[in-house]
Parts: sequence; C-alpha cells; structure tokens
Amino acid sequence: MRIDLNADLGESFGRWRLGDDEALLRLVTSANVACGFHAGDPTTLVRTCAAAAERGVRIGAQVAYRDLAGFGRRFIDVSADDLYADVLYQIGALDGIARSVGSRVTYVKPHGALYNTVVHHEEQAAAVVRAVAAAGALPVLGLPGSAILTAATALGIPTVREAFVDRAYTPEGTLVPRTTAGAVLTDPAAIAQRAVRMVTERNVEAIDGSVVATEAESVCVHGDSPDAVAMAAAVRDALAGAAVELAPFVS
Amino acid sequence: MRIDLNADLGESFGRWRLGDDEALLRLVTSANVACGFHAGDPTTLVRTCAAAAERGVRIGAQVAYRDLAGFGRRFIDVSADDLYADVLYQIGALDGIARSVGSRVTYVKPHGALYNTVVHHEEQAAAVVRAVAAAGALPVLGLPGSAILTAATALGIPTVREAFVDRAYTPEGTLVPRTTAGAVLTDPAAIAQRAVRMVTERNVEAIDGSVVATEAESVCVHGDSPDAVAMAAAVRDALAGAAVELAPFVS
Amino acid sequence: MRIDLNADLGESFGRWRLGDDEALLRLVTSANVACGFHAGDPTTLVRTCAAAAERGVRIGAQVAYRDLAGFGRRFIDVSADDLYADVLYQIGALDGIARSVGSRVTYVKPHGALYNTVVHHEEQAAAVVRAVAAAGALPVLGLPGSAILTAATALGIPTVREAFVDRAYTPEGTLVPRTTAGAVLTDPAAIAQRAVRMVTERNVEAIDGSVVATEAESVCVHGDSPDAVAMAAAVRDALAGAAVELAPFVS
Amino acid sequence: MRIDLNADLGESFGRWRLGDDEALLRLVTSANVACGFHAGDPTTLVRTCAAAAERGVRIGAQVAYRDLAGFGRRFIDVSADDLYADVLYQIGALDGIARSVGSRVTYVKPHGALYNTVVHHEEQAAAVVRAVAAAGALPVLGLPGSAILTAATALGIPTVREAFVDRAYTPEGTLVPRTTAGAVLTDPAAIAQRAVRMVTERNVEAIDGSVVATEAESVCVHGDSPDAVAMAAAVRDALAGAAVELAPFVS
Repeated sequence: MRIDLNADLGESFGRWRLGDDEALLRLVTSANVACGFHAGDPTTLVRTCAAAAERGVRIGAQVAYRDLAGFGRRFIDVSADDLYADVLYQIGALDGIARSVGSRVTYVKPHGALYNTVVHHEEQAAAVVRAVAAAGALPVLGLPGSAILTAATALGIPTVREAFVDRAYTPEGTLVPRTTAGAVLTDPAAIAQRAVRMVTERNVEAIDGSVVATEAESVCVHGDSPDAVAMAAAVRDALAGAAVELAPFVS
Repeated sequence: MRIDLNADLGESFGRWRLGDDEALLRLVTSANVACGFHAGDPTTLVRTCAAAAERGVRIGAQVAYRDLAGFGRRFIDVSADDLYADVLYQIGALDGIARSVGSRVTYVKPHGALYNTVVHHEEQAAAVVRAVAAAGALPVLGLPGSAILTAATALGIPTVREAFVDRAYTPEGTLVPRTTAGAVLTDPAAIAQRAVRMVTERNVEAIDGSVVATEAESVCVHGDSPDAVAMAAAVRDALAGAAVELAPFVS
Repeated sequence: MRIDLNADLGESFGRWRLGDDEALLRLVTSANVACGFHAGDPTTLVRTCAAAAERGVRIGAQVAYRDLAGFGRRFIDVSADDLYADVLYQIGALDGIARSVGSRVTYVKPHGALYNTVVHHEEQAAAVVRAVAAAGALPVLGLPGSAILTAATALGIPTVREAFVDRAYTPEGTLVPRTTAGAVLTDPAAIAQRAVRMVTERNVEAIDGSVVATEAESVCVHGDSPDAVAMAAAVRDALAGAAVELAPFVS
Repeated sequence: MRIDLNADLGESFGRWRLGDDEALLRLVTSANVACGFHAGDPTTLVRTCAAAAERGVRIGAQVAYRDLAGFGRRFIDVSADDLYADVLYQIGALDGIARSVGSRVTYVKPHGALYNTVVHHEEQAAAVVRAVAAAGALPVLGLPGSAILTAATALGIPTVREAFVDRAYTPEGTLVPRTTAGAVLTDPAAIAQRAVRMVTERNVEAIDGSVVATEAESVCVHGDSPDAVAMAAAVRDALAGAAVELAPFVS
C-alpha cells in the first residue's frame, strides 16, 4: 500500500512568517506551494521551491483568489474569465520559479475558499480546469466527487483524490465546515490513527458516528497550525508503522 | 537595413484602460507586455498575448518594481534577493500566459524606474540579469552602455540595444530626465524623422545640438501617450519610406 | 420641489484616469468619493475633495470591498468584523483628507458589489451600518427598501433614498441586473426625461411597462461611463426646466 | 524624572500575526500603531486601538511607505505630493478607528525606511510634516537633529525626541545601520542598563566607545523582535528601579 502526503507550504509573506516549511518538507511527499495571491512572496517561493527540489518533494501550485488581506479564505464572485487568467498567471509564476531550481510544477490544488467553492460551483470549477488545461493538463488535487474533479475528468485532465486527516466528515463524505464545533481535529495521536484507517481501510468515521468511504490517493495535513509538524510526523510514523509506503502520487 | 520597433503593452488594470493595444500591435514588431507588478491584470495579459501571438509580434516581459500605485515609476531600494525573485516570478507568470496562446516570452525589458535604475545601479542590474539567466537566458533590451547590458554580456546573455524616438538625449548619449523641459518629444513628424536618422545614420541630435551615436537593434515608441498610435504609425511609415525593413530583432 | 444629484468621483488610481471629476463637480450636488479600496489613490482623493470643497459639493464616503483588481464589483464573503473595520478605516481616511481641505465626509454610500449586497444581505448590511454608527452616525444613501436602510433606521441613523436615472427597474422596484439586456440606459434625452418623472411624479416605468413608485431624496448619475458628463448635464438641465431645484439632500 | 516608552504595535496583517500587542500595551506609554500601508489590517487596528484605549496608552500613527511586501523597510522615491497624500490618508484612517473606541491619534511617527529617510531627505521630511500640519499639527516623534524634526519646528509643530535602547549609536549620535554587525542589541539586561543611562545621564556609549548625548522625551523599544516583551519589561523595571516615572510624553 502507498499514499501521498500533501501539505500547504510557502505561505509566508514578506516580514510575516507562517509555517515551518523546512520541517514539513522532511515529512510530506507533495508540497502545495502558495503562488502569491493569498500568500507567498516571490522570495519565499524561491526558498520553498529550492528546499522542495532538494528533498525530491513534488511541487504543486496552490492557486487562490487574489486576496492577501483575507488569506484566500473568503469567497469572491470572480468571473470565469478573470479566474481563468488568475489561475494561469499563478501557475506560470510558480512554475518559472520551480524551473529555476531544477524542478517543475506538476499538479494544481486550489486553496481555501476557492477549494471549497469548486466543490460545488460549476462555473468557477470549469474556469480553474480550463486554466489547468491551458497550463499543460497537470493533475488536479481535490475532494472526491467535487465539481472540479468532474470537470477535470471531462477534459481528460488527471485527478488526484485526497482525504483530510484533521477534518471532521459529514455522513455524506463532505467536510464539516470550520465554523462548526468539532470540525477540526487537533490530537496528533487520534489524527494519526484516522490517517491509517483512511489508507488501509479506505473509510473514516463521520461526525455522527457513521462510516463513510474515503477513496484517496493523497492525504492532506495542514501546514499552518501550530502543531502542523508534530501532526505530520505522527501521521507519517503511524502510516509507516502500518506498512504504508509514503510516496508522491502517480498520475 | 532593418530595425525592430518595440512598445509597452498590456498596461491596463482591471477597470482602468491604458493604451490601445490592438492598434499598436498592428505597428510594432516587439511587445513589451506588463507582468502585473506595475500594471497588467491577468485577464488583460491573456488578451494582449493572444493578440500579439495572432499578429506574430514578439512578446517580451516588461518586468517592474512591485508598485501598482506608482505605476513602477518610483525607485524602490529593493534587495538583490527580492528583486531576483520578483523578476523571476513576473517572467514566469507572463510566459505561462504566452504559452497558453501558443507563444513564448522571448526577451526581457525592465520598466520605468527599474529601467532607469539598472542603467547605473550595479547590484539591481546584476539581480535582474541573474533572474533572466535563471529564466532561460533570454535577450535583454536596454540602453547602450547600461549596467544591465554589461552584466548580461558578462553572463553570456544576449543583449539588444535600443533607442528612444521621442526622448531627448544628452551629449553623453543618455536620456534627458523626464523632469527636464524638452525631455519628451511630441510632434509625430519630427519623431518620425528622428527615427529614420537613428536607423539610417546611426546617430541623433542631442539636446545641446551636438550629434551622438545611437547603436540600436530596436527602437522604442511609447504606448501610453495619447498620441501613441499616431506616433508609432508615423515612425513606421517614415522608416518604410526610407527603405528600412521593420522586423523583430534577431538575437 | 428639490432633489439632490449624486455621482461617483475620485475613481482614478495612480497612472490610471477614470471619469472627469472636474466637469461632474459642476453638475452634481453630492460627490460619492472613492476611499482607496476599489479605486482612489490618496493623491486623487486630495484633488477631488479640494475641488468638491471649492464648489460646495457635499462629500460622501463611497466605501467598498478591498478589491482594486475587481473595482469593487465582485461580491466578497467578508466577515462582519472585517467589513466593519474596513468601512471604518475607509471613512476615516477620506474624512481626514476632506478635513484637510476644509470639508467633511457627511454621508456614506456603499459602492458596486457591496451596494448590491447590502440590499439583501442582512449581516453585511448590519456591519456597514455599525461602522457608520461608530464613525458618527452619518446619513446612509441607499435603495428604498434595502436591508441597509432598514438597519440604519433601526440604529437611528438618517437614511437618504436614491433613484437611478440610467438603470432599468423591475416591477418590484429593484434594479435590473447589469447582465440583463436593457439594464443600462444610455440615451441622455430619455434619461433626462426619466429623471424629471422620477422627481416630479415620483414614479418610473419598469422594464415590463408597469409603473412603480420611486421615493427618492437623491438621484444618481454614473460617473465612469464615457458620456457621464453629457448625461449629468442633460439631467440637470431637464430638472431645471421642470422647476426642480438641485440642492444637497437635507438629513 | 520621567520618560515616555514607545513601541510599534498593530503590525499583524490578516492571517499573519506579528508581535504581542496585548503584552506590550501593559508596558509602554505610547503605541505607534501601523496604519495599513506597511502592516495593520483594519480589524487588527480596531483591536489594537481598543486595547490601547482601555489601558490609557497614547495612540500614534505609524505612517509608512505603501509597501506590504517590503514591510515599509525599503526606500521608495515617492513624490512629495504623493507622500503628503499617503500620510494624510493613513493618519485619517487610524484616527477614525481610534475615535470609534473613544481615543484619538495624538502623534505621528514614521516607520522603517520612511523614518530613516526623513532623517536627511528634506523633501520627503517636508511632505510628511505638511501632512501632519494638515491633520491638525500633531506632535512628531523622531531622531534628535533629524530633518523631519527641524521641518516640524519650522512649521510650529511640536516635536518629541526619542532614543533607541536596543540600537548601537555612531559617535555622531545617529543609528548604526542594521546591516552593520553589532547594530542591534539583544541582551535585555544590557539594554535595560542603557535605557537608565540614557534617561538619567542623558548620554549613551557609542559603538566606538565614545560618549554621545541623548536628549530624549521618549525611548523606543521594538515590538516585533521575539524578545520584545522581555526587553520592554526589563527596560520598564530598570527605569522604575532608578526612580524614573514612565508616563506619556507631554507636548
């Protein structure tokens, strides 16, 4: 059995530091690197991409709404044409930096509010996918059953399904919104156990106690929580203990 | 005899329009396209690159300081590392868009205050050139004798020297600062004549009446003045009348 | 009979010009001045406020979402706390500039997508009103029946109802969305006639031919259309011809 | 003997946290609050101003170049007119927020590169002072002998001289640039001792061992270093131990 471990990186901006990229890059196999629209000044991106390249970690473009003040966590009703161009611009910018350190952007994962929106918003999902197609049909990471993965498949773009080890699930298999109590799990041991079950049994206990299937080629650990490194390490160790190989997804 | 004609394009931003890209693309052979840091929202860049590609006009990255409010016209004392990353980011972003319309970024020209600064500021010139090298050693457009062209040559990066048809020259061959009276020429006929002389006689009359040499593979017409299109058309017609072929520079 | 005429001003940004503030200030009685979040760099705001003060035109804060790239025309799902602070910040910034030229911000009118949102979005409407209350309970300009005017009244904040001379109305008295054909009127003569009817008969013909009431203390003419000045002049002349006095609203 | 203790606050931005405002507000008597141009989103400013007002700490406007990516630490060659308007805008924005919590902006202190520039750049110093005059002639905090204090005095604006407890001084009484080794002191005990000497003996040992006079009505402790709180506490305790009263400056 094998699984990919992905996390958000490169989310500092100028004077402001966020996350411990160096430590996380020792633990994950795919790095969703910010592209400057919600976070990630170019100097940070150079540093993060160089460190990822050095460790052989896959670089993905973590594309977002143009919203530094909101960290990309607020839905913006951007038109399809603008979203298309915004995504294309971000992928190109990060890819230029990745190439400069001998690597490449090899997948795309929307960030924050854009991620949540393209689960159901077909017009924005289509715009993102159209941009990904124009950027070379890179694999798209997303929630199983989301509009964006459906749109990607329709265009012949590879999809990578992911599961969230530290987020509560509804009985329908979607994420419990962050605003709901219990939506975010914080105990590293419980999270690690959950990760093992997701990968080896391919299911998870939902917030109501029911069991829902989790088909996933990748598992996401969050990079900006205070205990991100401890959590990722716990997940990695638990998976290794369950004889699961951690390796970049194949697409 | 042949010469390249370049102009700044893609300098609208969101609701704000600037310049007549469509008309200028019928006249120039190289388009210095904004990259989003001083102007140029992604949707504008897609549109401008598509139009340039359609007309076979070369696309160059018009890299700038990060300064929308100042339109990149204010010197910023940015560190070498930050400038390096900023330039790399901009080239990559525009190249991603150019590729999406079947073209490529094939040269780099700094904009505004950065252009003026890298004439003499060796640290910033070196940072820009280092970024260009990391982006694939694209030709750099600049003022003959400028620090950036010297730095580019030292790194084996091709250089393209340009002359300005609507700017007054000092006896030393540098540009008279915009703040000096008479620094900017506005009469299309006089400008056109000047262009012909620059190309066919390879010199220009300086602001004090002396004659200075102008070695140039490209001639710049400004894209954001109200009469930009009329001026570019007059230059193009006058050059054609003098049997000068207008064609993209060869590097 | 008397009516206030309001228009959006101060919507240039840096190098980019928009609208003819000088000309419009000769025609309107209230100026909705941008506050820097969707448009309006500080230098523009100083110039616009000085010209408004000189002509005795009332200055209002045209508060908006933080969205230069989208000109404030895209809904952003900003939290109530952030919207409250954003609005307070904008009113203060503009008021500081207005005071410096011997005037004051004397009312608030949301811009673009925020304007449309607070017609129905009660949480955002309440946040804006709460900020207005904290800024000194200035009158709020808005659509009759909108959530924001209701919220303002509940807090004891004066309200000013406005009508749009160049926008089609639904039979329910709301504006036909810009994306619908016929939503925006462009013929100055027809617009002027419409304005007179709105003020003297207090109704307007809706897009389906029915007649709807328009209670309004102010009439809005748009400042950023190419014919804004011609339209405002036609409206002003027609109202004068109908013996309607143009004067700032009283609140 | 009495002295004012000032620190930079409100320097978070959106998702990014910087400094421990709550803890520092228990230690300082004047808060230089960011105004949104180099740091300080409006929600942060509301929170910081409310906490300062609650503790009776004076609120000053920490005006800066428009440069979030550079945290205001890069010189920008902004024109006098633009700098004037930028400063006016920032003071107004922060004052609007301060008023909303029952306080006021009662002084102005430039931040970062602007602070360093107005020590010697007479045109920018004059522009800042002109804006302060237009905003109500608030006291200006600055380095003794700086161009900005000279310009303020010439306009009848009160000045407050400050000393830096954690920065090395040249024999001429200016600050040793951050890029020089030894420019920034980090040992709380040594810094506290230095503060006592500055206040009680009105001098400091320069980097070459010579003694230079330090006339100061306020002493600055930095808010964004990891040990900012410890340092401020040590300074406060040492001053109290030397029978120096900590109180807001009188102007």
